[in-house]
Amino acid sequence: MRPRALDITLPDWLPPAVPWDRPHTTADDRMRLANHLADANVRHGTGGPFGAAVFDLTTHRPVAVGVNLVERAANAILHAEIVALIFAHATLGRYSLHAEDLPPHALTTSCEPCAMCLGALLWSGVRVLECGASREDAIRLGFDEGPVFPASYAYLEARGIRIVHGILRADAAAVLEAYRQRGGVIYNG
Amino acid sequence: MRPRALDITLPDWLPPAVPWDRPHTTADDRMRLANHLADANVRHGTGGPFGAAVFDLTTHRPVAVGVNLVERAANAILHAEIVALIFAHATLGRYSLHAEDLPPHALTTSCEPCAMCLGALLWSGVRVLECGASREDAIRLGFDEGPVFPASYAYLEARGIRIVHGILRADAAAVLEAYRQRGGVIYNG
Repeated sequence: MRPRALDITLPDWLPPAVPWDRPHTTADDRMRLANHLADANVRHGTGGPFGAAVFDLTTHRPVAVGVNLVERAANAILHAEIVALIFAHATLGRYSLHAEDLPPHALTTSCEPCAMCLGALLWSGVRVLECGASREDAIRLGFDEGPVFPASYAYLEARGIRIVHGILRADAAAVLEAYRQRGGVIYNG
Repeated sequence: MRPRALDITLPDWLPPAVPWDRPHTTADDRMRLANHLADANVRHGTGGPFGAAVFDLTTHRPVAVGVNLVERAANAILHAEIVALIFAHATLGRYSLHAEDLPPHALTTSCEPCAMCLGALLWSGVRVLECGASREDAIRLGFDEGPVFPASYAYLEARGIRIVHGILRADAAAVLEAYRQRGGVIYNG
């Protein structure tokens, strides 16, 4: 018989590193948190240089956060955005964050999402995507981003998702560069 | 403080429903299992009409399985393929199933993967994708498949992933139709 249950556990340092009650009113505020998580993930040696957070766009507070756990958890699925989204659904107890009785939510991520994460955010019901570093920044490091095309973004926008690129991009790119300098693992390159 | 850990739990009936020690030598054999899991998920009322399994292509035995748990777990991420892959990584303790010391693996899924799951299988290291029902079959039911284009499949094939479509498609499509007749929830349509 195989395991019936599986745990996804955040690093010890992560939940206390998040100012859960602080409103993150601007896109820059929200991106500073995503970048801080990416940077802390590299400094703590707990994974790849990517951080993400889901925000309630009424209170502007973080609902859930994620960092890249691929190497730590030995699990290819656990990109920062997937972790943030899966915890956001668990926290709210809803499979869609797009509902009349819920505020709109943003996914703020330190790097443009790969194909998997772009698909995930479409299903999540998140209404705003905020990106820091670009796909090209990640590819320059040796990461693959998968089959993401201009038409992929257009597909999401046609479904009402607002997408903002390049927020504090230099800060996010600096985290990527710090990871490269530490000799961090480039999985699935 | 927010939760630090999250459980993904398969339905009770699922692990005992899998003939773990039986070799599934042909694509039809493997698809019969994926379709059986999709069908059982509908009959047990535990989720959407989708099933998937990861197979070791040397022993031809299933390594991990998944069914759609979106509604049951209130989590948009938990498509059948994501569940199968996340458990495959956990079972093998590896973030890539593509390695010299591992056999090649197939992901066999009762329906062509959505954008999220197509990206996930690229990162998983699975070398073969076997699909039952088509994207059009799922769309006819009202499900959205996300930004998947012919170029998405070409991207995976260019990275050495072999893709086979339409295996026992009528059987998988019949499960979709049974779900529709039961009035199953079409989430994220």
